[in-house]
Amino acid sequence: MKVSVIVIGDEILLGQVTDTNSGDIARHMAPYGWEVGDVQAVGDEADEIRLAIDRAFELSDVVLTTGGLGPTKDDITKGVMRDYFGGELREDPAVLDNVKDVVSRRGFRINNLTAAQAIVPTSCRVIQNRVGTAPIMWFEKGGKVLVAMPGVPFETREMFTSEVFPQLRGKFKTDVDIEHAVLMVTDYTESALAEKIAPWEEALPEYLHLAYLPKPGLIRLRIDGAHRDRDFIASEVKRAAGELAAMLGDAVIATEDLTPAQILLQRCRELGLTLATAESCTGGNIAHELTLIPGSSDVFAGSVVSYSNDVKMGLLGVERETLEANGAVSLPVVREMAEGALRAVGAHVAVATSGIAGPGGGSEEKPVGTVCMAAAVTAPDGMTVCEAETHHFPGNRQRVIEASTTRVLIKAIKLLRAM
Amino acid sequence: MKVSVIVIGDEILLGQVTDTNSGDIARHMAPYGWEVGDVQAVGDEADEIRLAIDRAFELSDVVLTTGGLGPTKDDITKGVMRDYFGGELREDPAVLDNVKDVVSRRGFRINNLTAAQAIVPTSCRVIQNRVGTAPIMWFEKGGKVLVAMPGVPFETREMFTSEVFPQLRGKFKTDVDIEHAVLMVTDYTESALAEKIAPWEEALPEYLHLAYLPKPGLIRLRIDGAHRDRDFIASEVKRAAGELAAMLGDAVIATEDLTPAQILLQRCRELGLTLATAESCTGGNIAHELTLIPGSSDVFAGSVVSYSNDVKMGLLGVERETLEANGAVSLPVVREMAEGALRAVGAHVAVATSGIAGPGGGSEEKPVGTVCMAAAVTAPDGMTVCEAETHHFPGNRQRVIEASTTRVLIKAIKLLRAM
Repeated sequence: MKVSVIVIGDEILLGQVTDTNSGDIARHMAPYGWEVGDVQAVGDEADEIRLAIDRAFELSDVVLTTGGLGPTKDDITKGVMRDYFGGELREDPAVLDNVKDVVSRRGFRINNLTAAQAIVPTSCRVIQNRVGTAPIMWFEKGGKVLVAMPGVPFETREMFTSEVFPQLRGKFKTDVDIEHAVLMVTDYTESALAEKIAPWEEALPEYLHLAYLPKPGLIRLRIDGAHRDRDFIASEVKRAAGELAAMLGDAVIATEDLTPAQILLQRCRELGLTLATAESCTGGNIAHELTLIPGSSDVFAGSVVSYSNDVKMGLLGVERETLEANGAVSLPVVREMAEGALRAVGAHVAVATSGIAGPGGGSEEKPVGTVCMAAAVTAPDGMTVCEAETHHFPGNRQRVIEASTTRVLIKAIKLLRAM
Repeated sequence: MKVSVIVIGDEILLGQVTDTNSGDIARHMAPYGWEVGDVQAVGDEADEIRLAIDRAFELSDVVLTTGGLGPTKDDITKGVMRDYFGGELREDPAVLDNVKDVVSRRGFRINNLTAAQAIVPTSCRVIQNRVGTAPIMWFEKGGKVLVAMPGVPFETREMFTSEVFPQLRGKFKTDVDIEHAVLMVTDYTESALAEKIAPWEEALPEYLHLAYLPKPGLIRLRIDGAHRDRDFIASEVKRAAGELAAMLGDAVIATEDLTPAQILLQRCRELGLTLATAESCTGGNIAHELTLIPGSSDVFAGSVVSYSNDVKMGLLGVERETLEANGAVSLPVVREMAEGALRAVGAHVAVATSGIAGPGGGSEEKPVGTVCMAAAVTAPDGMTVCEAETHHFPGNRQRVIEASTTRVLIKAIKLLRAM
């Protein structure tokens, strides 16, 4: 089942905010065999919104819009929908009660603008928005459905998964079964990987499809299968994933769609180990990636972000001589940082980074993108193993930080393999 | 000048990656009066791409595509463009040289798939991609232009700003001047702010436009003006921004489009102060936001991410009695964390957080979303001032972390006002 998504809002076209709603919707629907067929982003302009709806209805039976439902003057979606689907605007008492309830839970009092959220077209059925003030509106026309949802990502995520999508599945029944498998692959560039598996990929039957998603230091391979026979497609996808995994060996670091942070937390949890980070150039990003994951606190103990050399020495115990002899961006320093984090935080596993994220700070010897990283683990016998290496990452500051984060997490995952 | 953007790639529609290219393009063009008029995201399907190009050319004279230019089988954009614009596919020796150069700089050797990047339609003019292997292709048809760019964000950002956009501006001259002003406003909800300034907003002349961009704890107000007379519109935008700022008083924390992290770094730099963070529930995100900003290292000294109580005591010097008497999520604990960070990191300003980001860990007394936060500053006379407060944030784990980060940075900005 294909769905068209329309993202409404000048802020999207201006690049002030990034649309994450369409991706959230796609990821949630995928396991049920529902796909986003196309996404259109348009401004807060009535003509543009109407054109986008026309086109979406040409392509799909289900159209989802997000955004443009706020209380301020620049949000015009509701009026456009009234014009498009007909009917009058009326105040809905149930929506007004819900708006009052949501506003008071946030500790505010309702004002005229917020109260206006309760005015909706008579041509729609309202789905109450439990987590925000903008009502969700379900319109039908000639057997097709348009659902207008708010733009605030957490509201859309919450209401789409709990109400909108279950109701859509109730209305439109589909009967193709979808299965997929994922391999997370390291050590290969995208083209080297593609070349290695080309003969295998070309021999895939038409009901199986392979997709590459390269990220710095990591490639996600996804096998999708679609077939009317559920058992058949499940076993075919499993067989294909097994063949790929056998071909790629140690380069496969997970057979689930997990981030390196999730994989490392899972391995540490299985082994009963706690985790720390000592971060210079990554500036807390590794800790942030780890702590974004719910339940990380049973494994992750803490971090020292040692941007200054004083903090490297004071909190991590890096020796002044090591810094002076090698510079902060060096293998001896990241080794001492990783081992220092084990002691300072009191953890079993630690990763450390020190590098030049740019744009300033580079030299001929150590250009921007040079990052030294280490992973250390204290084995059950009390011995500490520490491995360090230097990388050169292309791209801007953010990309260097992200690539360093991914690489050092993968480094720790591989180090733990030997445990 | 309006531009249509087409984002190509199954990975976008599947929600595996989020499109940031269209936003990057929009933000870069805005100061020159160029706008993204619409964005379409389509899969790696020839028919879908052709339809999207047809529609884009209906709306705009300039169409930019990103993605679908990778070396693997699922990337088909190049073939679609050849069919659309005509001509043959040929190997371009200059592109091949560039591909070899880029690949060898990354420390890899060229293989057949990478070499195939050098095959381009004869109907396009190639713009060499200095930072990646996929050539950028410039097509023209009936006075309109389509430029096909790669999907990798840093490649597109780099090549769009340095080559593609300057060449587009050279071809299409525009003559309306655009000015804008931004106010960053705290202390108001979106609707309370809208209500306060409604009479003023309604009286704005038609060449001025006000847009709201709410974020947790902060609203960006943007005034855009467009007029043929550059001096006139510049003074009008300035006048409007001045009126707004006078109306909102202390709630305005910046008159530039800066994040709280940027504002705080700027204030610290002006005052000659260094900065530290002590993070429990934000897990390093505050440090990450600060260190994403180039040049932050002259102000930001370091952080302690104290997820476990042992780290709170060991590295930050929080007293065991304080933890036992009040719990980790409490005002006394975040005060001790902030003051401990001043000492441990050796900084003048510190912010601290401790809270329940969820989804687990909540209780009746301290539900998920409860976050205690503190900001501390050591004044020139050696006295330390520390302020702490408790917030309740709605939403999921990520939203609680982001909202806490924004709030505590704003708290520090306000504390420094008194300096």
